[in-house]
Amino acid sequence: MVSSGSNKIPLARYLFTRLRQQGVHAIHGVPGDFTLKALDYLPQAGVKWIGTCNELNAGYAADGYARVRGLGALLTTYGVGELSAINAVAGSFSEHVPVVSIVGTPQRRLQHERKNVHHTLGDGRPRVFAEIARHVTVAQANLVDEATAPREIDMTIEAALRESRPVYIELPADMVGKEVEGGRLEQPLNADRSSGGDENRDDGLVDDLLQRLYSAKQPLLLVDSGGGVRQLRPEINDFVKASGIPTLCMPSGNGMVEHSLQNYYGVHSGPVGQIDTMPYVQGADLVIAFGPMFSDTQTLSWKVVPDAARTITLEKNSIHDPTRPTNGGTKREIDLKRLLARLTRRIDRSGVTSPDVTSLGNFRTIQAPAFGNASVDLDAPIDQTSFYLRLSAYLRPYDNVVLGNATPILGGRDLVLPHGAQITASGQWFSIGHMLPLTMGASLARQRQQQERLPGSKGGIGRTILLDGDGGFQVTAQELGTMIRYRIPVTIFLINNAGYAYERQIHGMHEDYNDLAPWRYQELARVFGASEAQLLSPTTPQRSSSSLSSEAIPADDDYPARSYEISTWRHLDRLLADEQFCEGRGLHFVDVRLGKFDVPEKFKVVFQRAGESLG
Amino acid sequence: MVSSGSNKIPLARYLFTRLRQQGVHAIHGVPGDFTLKALDYLPQAGVKWIGTCNELNAGYAADGYARVRGLGALLTTYGVGELSAINAVAGSFSEHVPVVSIVGTPQRRLQHERKNVHHTLGDGRPRVFAEIARHVTVAQANLVDEATAPREIDMTIEAALRESRPVYIELPADMVGKEVEGGRLEQPLNADRSSGGDENRDDGLVDDLLQRLYSAKQPLLLVDSGGGVRQLRPEINDFVKASGIPTLCMPSGNGMVEHSLQNYYGVHSGPVGQIDTMPYVQGADLVIAFGPMFSDTQTLSWKVVPDAARTITLEKNSIHDPTRPTNGGTKREIDLKRLLARLTRRIDRSGVTSPDVTSLGNFRTIQAPAFGNASVDLDAPIDQTSFYLRLSAYLRPYDNVVLGNATPILGGRDLVLPHGAQITASGQWFSIGHMLPLTMGASLARQRQQQERLPGSKGGIGRTILLDGDGGFQVTAQELGTMIRYRIPVTIFLINNAGYAYERQIHGMHEDYNDLAPWRYQELARVFGASEAQLLSPTTPQRSSSSLSSEAIPADDDYPARSYEISTWRHLDRLLADEQFCEGRGLHFVDVRLGKFDVPEKFKVVFQRAGESLG
Repeated sequence: MVSSGSNKIPLARYLFTRLRQQGVHAIHGVPGDFTLKALDYLPQAGVKWIGTCNELNAGYAADGYARVRGLGALLTTYGVGELSAINAVAGSFSEHVPVVSIVGTPQRRLQHERKNVHHTLGDGRPRVFAEIARHVTVAQANLVDEATAPREIDMTIEAALRESRPVYIELPADMVGKEVEGGRLEQPLNADRSSGGDENRDDGLVDDLLQRLYSAKQPLLLVDSGGGVRQLRPEINDFVKASGIPTLCMPSGNGMVEHSLQNYYGVHSGPVGQIDTMPYVQGADLVIAFGPMFSDTQTLSWKVVPDAARTITLEKNSIHDPTRPTNGGTKREIDLKRLLARLTRRIDRSGVTSPDVTSLGNFRTIQAPAFGNASVDLDAPIDQTSFYLRLSAYLRPYDNVVLGNATPILGGRDLVLPHGAQITASGQWFSIGHMLPLTMGASLARQRQQQERLPGSKGGIGRTILLDGDGGFQVTAQELGTMIRYRIPVTIFLINNAGYAYERQIHGMHEDYNDLAPWRYQELARVFGASEAQLLSPTTPQRSSSSLSSEAIPADDDYPARSYEISTWRHLDRLLADEQFCEGRGLHFVDVRLGKFDVPEKFKVVFQRAGESLG
Repeated sequence: MVSSGSNKIPLARYLFTRLRQQGVHAIHGVPGDFTLKALDYLPQAGVKWIGTCNELNAGYAADGYARVRGLGALLTTYGVGELSAINAVAGSFSEHVPVVSIVGTPQRRLQHERKNVHHTLGDGRPRVFAEIARHVTVAQANLVDEATAPREIDMTIEAALRESRPVYIELPADMVGKEVEGGRLEQPLNADRSSGGDENRDDGLVDDLLQRLYSAKQPLLLVDSGGGVRQLRPEINDFVKASGIPTLCMPSGNGMVEHSLQNYYGVHSGPVGQIDTMPYVQGADLVIAFGPMFSDTQTLSWKVVPDAARTITLEKNSIHDPTRPTNGGTKREIDLKRLLARLTRRIDRSGVTSPDVTSLGNFRTIQAPAFGNASVDLDAPIDQTSFYLRLSAYLRPYDNVVLGNATPILGGRDLVLPHGAQITASGQWFSIGHMLPLTMGASLARQRQQQERLPGSKGGIGRTILLDGDGGFQVTAQELGTMIRYRIPVTIFLINNAGYAYERQIHGMHEDYNDLAPWRYQELARVFGASEAQLLSPTTPQRSSSSLSSEAIPADDDYPARSYEISTWRHLDRLLADEQFCEGRGLHFVDVRLGKFDVPEKFKVVFQRAGESLG
């Protein structure tokens, strides 16, 4: 495309337009004096501002947004703002989520002269925060020169897309409105590592992989969401389907593979899963692992990690094959998307062995223990051993179920997902409180996707559902108000056991350091700003025998904000029978009251081991 | 002192005992698996655990605690926890607050083998977080060796005390219970830079300073709270009193000098103050500045900073004197505490000039404009131009008034403080949301001090009072629940103008990015866990004409949790006439409803300049 001569636009507009081109229709953050002027350029670029209560939460929300859209962005102020958000950025780094962290910095002159600007450390180190950001981002740009700024922006965003990791952009306050050449905006960004390369470059690799799949006696595909493969869900599913090879997901990869595929056998939790997947995995003579996050937390301290000597690891941009060292080691660059397409096209399913999969059973038919016999006690308290299994019936196609870094990352492994439904769960970072703001960002991104795909649709496809613990919830709770403010639809199940249940089980079962302040969770939506019109018919089934939604049509029907408290199976059954609840419009907050020591039974051994291994 | 042979104690106990010896009776944090075992050793050392909702808030609380006690500590978990807190630690660095940041890290073996532990970045950089911490701490220790650990702990805590800045200690999970030599605990720590040095080393300096004070025609003492001088309030006051030299405070140093001292003339705000202090400061031929934080925010972009050529800067450990270069520059090491004691002892007040102080007026007698004429309208809405001036009458001896990083840091300059009362306000870091958790930590520290000074006393001397903006409040609001949980007495005035008023005035007066979710603040205490017994008689004077505290004696009289909403001067008057409110036991939360665009009138020019200077 020929550039149409000079086309000057303000720098901030260039930046936001580039992001918008990549699908970023919303940026999260907290306003600060060094960012204020930049905010004025958002509407021109068609980008929405989502003001969160604090910057850490903005970072988490941008992370959630990016997991859905393939790119997210946050905008914070220098020093105080960016440091508050850095834990979220580090989390995006660790789990391969591409987020552009933009920081509004002081005017260039003030930095150059090392003036004592507020939000600095006061010791003449104006760019110490940029040094800190380098540790957790893969590319950085300091936009101090209008001649080079557009190119630097492009290169930085490309790096985020290519590496699926966060990048860092410093935008000095006096650069915001500077006119830059906008012609580059006509050229699309190039985020492919191998673009323009030889189409047939990987011929040898494809042949080799196919050959080894054909000759394996017990092959396994093991799918996770790390290494930048999160965006390759369709390609991975195509390959799983075409190959027919037995497939498992890691807990943080659950939902990366359609649960309806016949050769999909559930989550690999080894002996603590509902079905012990370890016999098959141990017997596997070839494992192809997609974006694995083999952290101790989800591998029983690495006990369920398949034998490295028989595992080929595929990430977005690399293959690691211990049995095929090339020059420079066992890892080499690839373009996984292209490689998968070729493998899927060429694989001959009849050439693949049909191993004995008896031990893998059928995870779709597991019954909740509390409902296992004829005399079910519906007034018995809800317990987590059965709760998640019962919840599967509630799920709908294209739901996104977010699992909090609490007992839900354990119990949520039991969920059986309908078509297109996904799980979002941490596999590496496991930061408490991450998931509430993540859910907000993810739901916002989903809303946008629905509008793009089905213009005019209000209902939309799939809900965003959070299962979180009470300890995690308290970390970032104020964003409930932000959800209400921006009318972002979310359904929340608060797994409320009056404390840090996960920690309690590891160590300090009866210590008060694992207790929490006893919040009245049901009243939060009201306190955080839901209007009276939105608040009609909060339901407390244990106090009333009336039907769950007996109110007349609420005044704010588009965004109701409802709260529920449930503690028995009967409450749960009635809640899940309530169509207004199931529809998921607005905010639905379910306080699930559980016993203080209740955890999914099979995972008690996990906690015990974690406690022992602390030394 | 001779060590009594072998005296082995667990490492964690050593660490906490050392902190306890320095006055740290409470440590703030969030439990995590790598810290859990350490928590068990707190009671043995006589240290209380304060579990906050998140780690940033723990860091802020530890900062507030340290500002009162002279040392504070927080304990967070590796990676996710410490990064969440780092903005608070950086703030402590920037404003010279000694905080020990202890991080529970993974077992040594796992770090050594670069295992994929959760909470890491998953890329084999186990100590990347320690690298990040180096940027904002003055000493670091990684306790991997039981032989050297006690000495390393001592040196690190000593560095915090000496430099008045944060330090960083990594405590691997498997080291927590390791037996170490406890004999060192019998030797007190040595935090003096110059201890044991020559008592008369500074003779020449004392003579020189006195000579220059005697010969100055218009001398000025300018007191702030940076540079480690916060703990030298008594010594500074003694010198101010003995010298009789006209004295001003920087906004963040307000309260460092007794307001009753005749030669104290209030806060130096230059032309935007109630009294323009600039004529005197500009005419000063010798300025002695104590711990100044001359950031743009509190100096009208450096316009009110005194002439550097005539300013001698004193910090805890240094003197900077541009007119007396010694070998190596114009800055040299001193021990300010000792220097001040000698100056105070030797200064001859009759040798000091009596400059013309007419222009400095008397800040104690300024009337609130709303009450300036005979026909006061008590039903007029409260405005910030008069609010702070009216609040002075409410203050009591030894109160600690914390000013949020919002309009209160401006308006709070007008407060006239009774004996022993202090202000806590940011002068450099200005992180939004800092002050609510800081208030909690500061109040906890005050409680302890009172118990130590007056054993058995319940009431205590002085209240801890926070004036915060609504935007700042939402950042860290959940710690209201922590205050209630641990029964920490605090009175909060929420300066509620439905948005980021400070930012709104700088830029974006009518933009919705400066708006906030409309919380129902009065209901927060209830939602965050105050019991029914505590919640008796919340008062809403605008809805009811009954007296403010008409209830019978509440059931939980020791820790009531009361909420108030006020919007007129009449409401304020009645509130301040309510003895139960003024007594300050428990939690008192006052939602001060103000107009959206209301700010202290005189500061509008400050906002305007700040907006213009953004470029």
